[in-house]
Amino acid sequence: MIWLNGRLRAGGTVDVADRGLLLADGLFETIAVFGGRPFRLADHLARLDRGAALLGLSFDRDRLAAGIAALAATLGGGHGALRATVTRGPGPRGLLPPDQPQPTLLVTAAPWSRQPVGAAISLATVTLRRNDRSPLAQVKSLAALEQILALGEARKAGADDALLLNTAGRVACTAMANLFVVIDGLLVTPPLADGVLPGVMRGLLDATERSLLPADLARADAVFATNSLRLVMPVGRLDGRPLAGGGQAAAALAVIRQAIQAECGCDPLA
Amino acid sequence: MIWLNGRLRAGGTVDVADRGLLLADGLFETIAVFGGRPFRLADHLARLDRGAALLGLSFDRDRLAAGIAALAATLGGGHGALRATVTRGPGPRGLLPPDQPQPTLLVTAAPWSRQPVGAAISLATVTLRRNDRSPLAQVKSLAALEQILALGEARKAGADDALLLNTAGRVACTAMANLFVVIDGLLVTPPLADGVLPGVMRGLLDATERSLLPADLARADAVFATNSLRLVMPVGRLDGRPLAGGGQAAAALAVIRQAIQAECGCDPLA
Repeated sequence: MIWLNGRLRAGGTVDVADRGLLLADGLFETIAVFGGRPFRLADHLARLDRGAALLGLSFDRDRLAAGIAALAATLGGGHGALRATVTRGPGPRGLLPPDQPQPTLLVTAAPWSRQPVGAAISLATVTLRRNDRSPLAQVKSLAALEQILALGEARKAGADDALLLNTAGRVACTAMANLFVVIDGLLVTPPLADGVLPGVMRGLLDATERSLLPADLARADAVFATNSLRLVMPVGRLDGRPLAGGGQAAAALAVIRQAIQAECGCDPLA
Repeated sequence: MIWLNGRLRAGGTVDVADRGLLLADGLFETIAVFGGRPFRLADHLARLDRGAALLGLSFDRDRLAAGIAALAATLGGGHGALRATVTRGPGPRGLLPPDQPQPTLLVTAAPWSRQPVGAAISLATVTLRRNDRSPLAQVKSLAALEQILALGEARKAGADDALLLNTAGRVACTAMANLFVVIDGLLVTPPLADGVLPGVMRGLLDATERSLLPADLARADAVFATNSLRLVMPVGRLDGRPLAGGGQAAAALAVIRQAIQAECGCDPLA
């Protein structure tokens, strides 16, 4: 079941002139649903709003929110993973948007899996650098091809995910998650200016923002990654070398589980 | 008229699960057709091949070429602008491609206009930097949102196009074209390593590759931009200041017109 431009339906298509397809001209959000309730929906919609402001893209936010609610309701009170996509809709040839865009609004659903939550992952540092000199680094845009390439390079190196450095050589994120380290008892995460997406799970953790170098990961007491579906993942290895363990990833996961309990009325890991 | 996955048709759609739509996982080429004949088609297909190799994307190149020929044939021997798009096709949720991708092959046509050919343009330097630390900078991928943002910023500044610097502050390109300067009688263009797309028109001109700083544009005897549809555009202003004129843009256009005459048997500007 999907929701497309106002209607629930079994499946759907978009026009070949859609700028989302042709030029990655759009945004998306990945939203976990626990017990039938989207988790931190307001945060996801707020991030979408900030991205739309950057792109100069006007869309009917209430209509999209209704679509998210409609598709969440089809999950029968269970868990799921929604993806909300907004494109600038069809347009003529070329980079310039049409004068009166008709955005495409799409919500799709996939099963949510508890299996990767809290499971240790390995990272490989990839050659591709995250562009901290582009405002798109702080926006969840449809232009996700760099992350696909980064993930592919990491998988070829035998790792689960990529460590992405920015153009200054600082730690930015993984291909699919924000990064946190514990150094001298302090929970630290890179600042947005280092080319970091303002992750919704990242926003739930009380951390100090500070630029990190790759060597900081090696000397940290703990390294973990966060995203909206996998919640918290301890990073057990970097470029084949083990990283320090530590209970801080478990503590971060406990914070997020409490927030889920408070907002969605259930514990998806229970 | 479009050509989609093997068939000419009046219009068409792609599945909402297409990775081109969801993740910019694909490539495209913009190909001018003069007198019914695609210009430098082999160069465009070769660039597509290099991009596909980078992405690990296998597609039926002969089938796409047949689609380009079929759509070019609908132009009745006239001029046109074709766009060939290849995506990795539909996939499940997430960044990882499916094991057996079924690529989407699409060719669309638009009118070709002679009006912008040879017409002077103005550039505005934008804040967004071209990511020379990503291999995608040298590939014509679907992730064109940065170019859209750059063009939008330039238009807000009252210019026709953007001057994009790379993360090291060097000149890369405009939002839609390669850049050339004439300095001390030498035709110079930035090297691919500076975050430059290997433009097909760029490949037709005999230029020295050398990194350029913004100040080099101001002191140059001529500055011009090239792309596959507008061919050659003199750059008359940068950030509101006039740039030197010069006959070299006209000379470059003459070279390209001769190549069109030789390959397509016509002069679209005659």
